[in-house]
Amino acid sequence: MELLEKIHSPEDLRSLAPSQLPDLASEIRDFLVSAVSKTGGHIGPNLGVVELTIALHRVFESPRDQLLFDTGHQTYVHKLLTGRRAGFDRLRQRGGLSGYPSRAESEHDFIENSHASTALSYADGLAKARQLLDLDGCVVAVVGDGALTGGMAWEALNNIAACEERPVVIVVNDNGRSYSPTIGGFASHLASLRLDPDYENAMRLVKRVMPQAPVAGAAVYEALHALKKGLKDALAPQAMFEDLGLKYVGPVDGHDVHSLEEALRAARAYGRPVIVHCVTRKGHGYAPAEEDTEDCFHGPAAFDPETGRSRAASATSWSNVFGSEMVKIGAERSDVVALTAAMLHPTGLAGFAEAYPDRLFDVGIAEQHAATSAAGLAMGGLHPVMAVYATFLNRAFDQVLMDVALHRLPVTFVLDRAGVTGNDGPSHNGMWDMSILQLVPGLRLAAPRDGARLRELLREALKVSDGPTAVRFPKGAVGDDIDAVDKLGTMDVLTRFAGLPPVDGEPADVLLVAAGSMARVCVDAAGLIAEQGVGVTVVDPRWVKPLDPALIDAAREHSRVVVVEDNGRVGAVGDAVARYVSDSGVMTPVRAFGIPQEFLEQASRAEILADIGLTAQDLADDITLFAQSPLDDPGDGRPARTPTERSMVRAER
Amino acid sequence: MELLEKIHSPEDLRSLAPSQLPDLASEIRDFLVSAVSKTGGHIGPNLGVVELTIALHRVFESPRDQLLFDTGHQTYVHKLLTGRRAGFDRLRQRGGLSGYPSRAESEHDFIENSHASTALSYADGLAKARQLLDLDGCVVAVVGDGALTGGMAWEALNNIAACEERPVVIVVNDNGRSYSPTIGGFASHLASLRLDPDYENAMRLVKRVMPQAPVAGAAVYEALHALKKGLKDALAPQAMFEDLGLKYVGPVDGHDVHSLEEALRAARAYGRPVIVHCVTRKGHGYAPAEEDTEDCFHGPAAFDPETGRSRAASATSWSNVFGSEMVKIGAERSDVVALTAAMLHPTGLAGFAEAYPDRLFDVGIAEQHAATSAAGLAMGGLHPVMAVYATFLNRAFDQVLMDVALHRLPVTFVLDRAGVTGNDGPSHNGMWDMSILQLVPGLRLAAPRDGARLRELLREALKVSDGPTAVRFPKGAVGDDIDAVDKLGTMDVLTRFAGLPPVDGEPADVLLVAAGSMARVCVDAAGLIAEQGVGVTVVDPRWVKPLDPALIDAAREHSRVVVVEDNGRVGAVGDAVARYVSDSGVMTPVRAFGIPQEFLEQASRAEILADIGLTAQDLADDITLFAQSPLDDPGDGRPARTPTERSMVRAER
Repeated sequence: MELLEKIHSPEDLRSLAPSQLPDLASEIRDFLVSAVSKTGGHIGPNLGVVELTIALHRVFESPRDQLLFDTGHQTYVHKLLTGRRAGFDRLRQRGGLSGYPSRAESEHDFIENSHASTALSYADGLAKARQLLDLDGCVVAVVGDGALTGGMAWEALNNIAACEERPVVIVVNDNGRSYSPTIGGFASHLASLRLDPDYENAMRLVKRVMPQAPVAGAAVYEALHALKKGLKDALAPQAMFEDLGLKYVGPVDGHDVHSLEEALRAARAYGRPVIVHCVTRKGHGYAPAEEDTEDCFHGPAAFDPETGRSRAASATSWSNVFGSEMVKIGAERSDVVALTAAMLHPTGLAGFAEAYPDRLFDVGIAEQHAATSAAGLAMGGLHPVMAVYATFLNRAFDQVLMDVALHRLPVTFVLDRAGVTGNDGPSHNGMWDMSILQLVPGLRLAAPRDGARLRELLREALKVSDGPTAVRFPKGAVGDDIDAVDKLGTMDVLTRFAGLPPVDGEPADVLLVAAGSMARVCVDAAGLIAEQGVGVTVVDPRWVKPLDPALIDAAREHSRVVVVEDNGRVGAVGDAVARYVSDSGVMTPVRAFGIPQEFLEQASRAEILADIGLTAQDLADDITLFAQSPLDDPGDGRPARTPTERSMVRAER
Repeated sequence: MELLEKIHSPEDLRSLAPSQLPDLASEIRDFLVSAVSKTGGHIGPNLGVVELTIALHRVFESPRDQLLFDTGHQTYVHKLLTGRRAGFDRLRQRGGLSGYPSRAESEHDFIENSHASTALSYADGLAKARQLLDLDGCVVAVVGDGALTGGMAWEALNNIAACEERPVVIVVNDNGRSYSPTIGGFASHLASLRLDPDYENAMRLVKRVMPQAPVAGAAVYEALHALKKGLKDALAPQAMFEDLGLKYVGPVDGHDVHSLEEALRAARAYGRPVIVHCVTRKGHGYAPAEEDTEDCFHGPAAFDPETGRSRAASATSWSNVFGSEMVKIGAERSDVVALTAAMLHPTGLAGFAEAYPDRLFDVGIAEQHAATSAAGLAMGGLHPVMAVYATFLNRAFDQVLMDVALHRLPVTFVLDRAGVTGNDGPSHNGMWDMSILQLVPGLRLAAPRDGARLRELLREALKVSDGPTAVRFPKGAVGDDIDAVDKLGTMDVLTRFAGLPPVDGEPADVLLVAAGSMARVCVDAAGLIAEQGVGVTVVDPRWVKPLDPALIDAAREHSRVVVVEDNGRVGAVGDAVARYVSDSGVMTPVRAFGIPQEFLEQASRAEILADIGLTAQDLADDITLFAQSPLDDPGDGRPARTPTERSMVRAER
């Protein structure tokens, strides 16, 4: 740690002698393995970019030169080199160092969003701004090979290439992996670049051959010129980029700082849009991560640094339940196929892929294509299941709406990591899906409360043949099943307490609608509410869209309706219940508890749920107050104690 | 019309002699100009694909072979050749022929969504289904060069290219225009293909040259093989596609049926993914459309077939108001820049582009990139205005949320064609934006009611520096300004009627919240409501997100709150008002009137608004009924007469 301890800024790094850099890289790897083994985090991607990040900060002058990292989980080394070493003991924890770039942390950080393929678009915008404002410096975007399979990257390349006067240095960090091995024709193309024979050797051969071809007039000169250009293309087929108007440098060994610095200096000097193709190895320098075929070291929980073995208990996860049910369904129904956007293992589809390799399609980091090709599969007579993290479905909203739902095609979207996920910060929380899917005509949306319901609702979804369905569930361990005590229409009644006779005023009893994984906390809250003498019936609608008409009957029979959900409060199940009740001419007041419509700072899921009042005790307090407030209260001129307010109050403490 | 009259199906077409085809093409052009001059419609794109569509239907056997048309406005010729000539007199009208493919119309139609760049993804899905189900036939996708600038197309190409055993014929209809001239590096690349010298001539030259080069052992053989491949790339640099693993055929003259048939037959026989590059001319064969530099003939209203002059009155449109205000703002503020996704003229930005060419960025059909590069421009110190049709913003939801709003960047989204647009059918209605934007933390959303408010709110939006803003307005003529009679906080009071003293029961008076362009109909409805003795105050909130706290005071002072909006009812302003009132502890009932959350069939805007009860008389009836229903009504067990129900009742007539 001798060298690393002296690096507090990129200037310190630039003052090192080149001969010291391999030692520094080694120290950084030791530090990362040790630190991340305690906190968990994206270790694999960061071990792969140690030399690249060193070279970037030696060649470019951040923040005058803007270094943009796509899918920001590859910025741990960048954080180390920009004075944030001390923060790693609280990496990804509440109030601690973010696992992604954070503009609040450092002037060297720009893109906080962790969704892939955005950096080139930012770079294009920043380069345009530099040109208009006549600023010095350079825009550098570091993108993975996987991120280049995303359509946004293509849109951006097409724009960056259109103007020679706007320099952008595009550093392709090519580990051939993205999350899992990179998919598609583009990946094959990059692989062919990696595997090419030594370009210089080939050129020497050509120089021996070419002069002996006859030269006869301008036409032949043109042909020969074309031959030379063509040969270069054939031996190092960067033509794809050059066809777009982008200069290409590489491939460069991404673990050789000297070569990297040379290539980056050349790219900077070029003064035009240029691609630098660096070949790196995910997990480089740490054997358990290098040998990791299932990509467990992409972003593991805490682990033993010696063996790489996880320290987390391996309780059955929601993804596991989904994955094993899909294997069973696959055996029963040959028309069921599955799609993933570069998330085979994390979504639990690896078992399905192994059992039915011809029915599993990994489309790359390409959610738009995943949804619309699923529409095509459904049009062709199959029933596709697209498994995706809830937050990434936002990328395919238009495709779900127009390509799937408008055509009433039976595609089932399985949304993992729905609700509060926590430590990955604001762009990973799955708090949008129950709102955007409410907008989609004809789509049916299920929120299972436990493993049994996940299996059951998945099978119900796969029986729907006249339109899309979605099944959403949270991250983590699935917990015990919660049995129903009764049914109301298709809704499950989870518990029911009669209210005590009122001392004065009207009888208060609450219909408590628990969406999906909030069932457990609602059942617990109901017990506390009943202790206050308020009657309560907890129902799980199972399908939160469309709502069952039995809900209206139940709303009429209670004096208050409360909805609790693990989604942003705006436009989600709470609003849907309130609208349905109002449209039905029922005047029973409805109140919704969910996630305040804000970007949530990183913290554990439990910490965040406590912050926003989604605990049994907080819900019981709020619901009891709501149940006991008079119906004809004209309001006191100040907002009620809403979850948003509670969140603000907590934040002030 | 001799030939065209005999064509009732593709079989009839296939029985024609090749020599008859130019005459048929000529008849089709005459028919299209004559028919579309009466109804309006997408004339330019269809005149460009007459020969191509003939060739497609002669070479492939629809529907056994599936012909997929991207951005389906280019399917008029396809409709003529599949037995739908008689429908053209009611093109794009209520109950008439759709301006896009329609599965209800024909077994030859597949993709109804008119958003661009989807066909290749459908094709990939359909090809995968064919492979799994072991079906005969071929999948053919016809895409414009413009559609290839969309990221989805790249994602799809990358997947199609990944498997040689799944044949897809990709026909690139390259008119170098998309909507306006195609933008970006990819367009330059296609242009270089078009401009290349005769490939065959070049090959003959090479054959003379090559044999004289010495051949010495395997290494040299390899080099020469590379030379040949390289030469081909250099002269017809399809390397870009071939690098991905796609065979390339072309370029082919898209107005020569014989060449087209030859190329398509070769592509079909190839049995693998292949691109056929056809060069066509938008508006071909009709001088006013061919000479149309401003793309007025992309989709004009009714016009004089002789001169091409429009028959529509040219009232000032919302787009005109926006466009001319942007020119003024551009002169005052050098930091304001504008972006369009291939919609320069339709969004009204042509004047800005002419006045400040270096501050206008047309990014191609690439809404995702438009939004995130706008984020980059804002990060770089500018204030970008992204002008886009409301329905196309759905493509960039994730980017607005994560790339702009999470970073609190001052980007202003200007949403044209918001609300019911009508004749373009379900995928063009802008009925989603006020719902999805409600979800975006920190975004401010304005809905101007008239031209004066559009100018005013645009300027207010451009003063916001700590986060995104959006301004949304409908299609068509802007109409007269509606002056305010009073203010409530930042809200405008448009009219106010006192209620008559109640005969029995409680006093009824309504706070009528009119969002944006619904102001006129709400003012008219208020007069009718007052005639029934019900008091009514019409307010225009101007900014519909966030809502002004004055709204809560007003809600407390009225016995009912009604919201009227030109957006899907789910999750939009009505829900936002209801939630805000409820969260504030105010018990005043809220009811919302808007577009039922369904895909709307094509009809005129006025017809659709009447269908869904958004007329002054219907609103007055419904609101009066709501105002006079007792507060403690437990409901009668059946849904109220909601707009959705009204729509269904109308449909049954």
